[in-house]
Amino acid sequence: MTFQKTDRFLVAGLGLLGARYALGLTRAGLHVDGVNRSRPNLETALQKGYIQTGKTADYADLVSAADYIILAQTPSAMLEWAGRWGRCCKPGCLITDLAGVKQGLVEPLQALLPQEVEFIGSHPMAGRELSGAQNAELVDFFPANFIITPTGQNTPRGIAFARALADTLGFAHVCLLSPAEHDRMIGYVSQLTHAIAVSLMCASDNGRLAEYTGDSFRDLTRIARINGGMWAELFLWNRQNLIAEIDQFTSTLQALKERLATGDAEALKEMFALSTQRRAAFDKKPEEEKG
Amino acid sequence: MTFQKTDRFLVAGLGLLGARYALGLTRAGLHVDGVNRSRPNLETALQKGYIQTGKTADYADLVSAADYIILAQTPSAMLEWAGRWGRCCKPGCLITDLAGVKQGLVEPLQALLPQEVEFIGSHPMAGRELSGAQNAELVDFFPANFIITPTGQNTPRGIAFARALADTLGFAHVCLLSPAEHDRMIGYVSQLTHAIAVSLMCASDNGRLAEYTGDSFRDLTRIARINGGMWAELFLWNRQNLIAEIDQFTSTLQALKERLATGDAEALKEMFALSTQRRAAFDKKPEEEKG
Repeated sequence: MTFQKTDRFLVAGLGLLGARYALGLTRAGLHVDGVNRSRPNLETALQKGYIQTGKTADYADLVSAADYIILAQTPSAMLEWAGRWGRCCKPGCLITDLAGVKQGLVEPLQALLPQEVEFIGSHPMAGRELSGAQNAELVDFFPANFIITPTGQNTPRGIAFARALADTLGFAHVCLLSPAEHDRMIGYVSQLTHAIAVSLMCASDNGRLAEYTGDSFRDLTRIARINGGMWAELFLWNRQNLIAEIDQFTSTLQALKERLATGDAEALKEMFALSTQRRAAFDKKPEEEKG
Repeated sequence: MTFQKTDRFLVAGLGLLGARYALGLTRAGLHVDGVNRSRPNLETALQKGYIQTGKTADYADLVSAADYIILAQTPSAMLEWAGRWGRCCKPGCLITDLAGVKQGLVEPLQALLPQEVEFIGSHPMAGRELSGAQNAELVDFFPANFIITPTGQNTPRGIAFARALADTLGFAHVCLLSPAEHDRMIGYVSQLTHAIAVSLMCASDNGRLAEYTGDSFRDLTRIARINGGMWAELFLWNRQNLIAEIDQFTSTLQALKERLATGDAEALKEMFALSTQRRAAFDKKPEEEKG
């Protein structure tokens, strides 16, 4: 699929990533409109030229004119939006999202929308410890992953739309997972790491230690600065997977503690050897490193 | 204290940090000798010009000629070394180390060495996921912390030596802590984070997820590549503090899990707000950022 200059995109929700999508599509020479319930992000997106037209209410005209819609809100806001505005979409309209959870979202969204409108789930794995349209330019989509999560309701045209979007926005890798596979994966690689970083900061009042910290502590806790409203929702939407990951991680940490308590140096070294070997698989390949 | 061109330094142990110390002192125009039980690191340090003379055995002449000695080994090897070679040190000789644990090491070392030799503990917080003399040039001591851990046995001259060493090697910050304070701090900012990263990698066979990981996962687990022998020893030497930190962290993670399990979004947001606020104190100040 190739986008045409005459195509009309609509971004619903102009926070950090919604505005970044609008910016990327506009830079590619495409027509982008935007809607946002509150005024500041909309004003920023208009002033910076990320969108051509924008509204905070009465979206029906912009929705019905759109060929492609990007839902860039929290999962609950997406469901509300689709219930309210879905009926205004024109037949053949293709819609995607950018939510970090998929099970419990993609199929309900597909069910809410009219038959002649196709929703295809996708997730740009490119969050940052930032928020708001004013920071959109700081988000870099290379070398991030773009994950498409089709269901039995999706068509090759819907998947081609999501792929074309990822290419236009400059993602390095595109992959397909089912919503369930996506949520299991994200529970481990993203949500568990955020839960750990948050717990590490909450475990003790550690500000007095700031002057002693090295890069390893800073790297591990960078993600403890968190957009609380959005992450509470993402955690709760995926709580079954996240609780399972927390349990598995906790029992491994307890095993390490047991080895410490019994003074078993050899058993500790076995864990260190395993972690060293496994971590090697996660090193960036040279072509993924940024210059 | 200012070092003189006629002063003789001896580095005992030419692994990554020992070789980096030798390199830094040699670059400052000082005379550095080195001893190391095995040949490869010694050969590297000689070939690269980090040391002027080196030996793998019969060190008595180099030890007795030294004005300043740096013990750059594991804690147990330092104790063995001091027991064997301490009696060869010349009166007035100043000795320091670079171990990541201090309680149970500094006072025993002071007790092992002759009365007229002063040992002052210090810890350069500049480890890397590397080892060996061949990687010494990759270690950057700016903007790392250099921690001096004096006891009642130390003199202003001993502390001045450690400060001069930190300045010569280019550390950004020097601070003084008691051995007990040092070990409590390091249990939290360094050892707990390593225990977490290792446990995260050991918790599941996750190589198939490597293609989906983003920077947050990579940052958090970077330190899971670990020098097993050295870290097993550091963990065990500080196990009381580390076990206390693991327990405190684990109960906080369990509290987060409880909030998830009961679906308490407000209580989750409270944790996120606390972690965000606390993490802000750990951001690097602009003058610490490298160009």
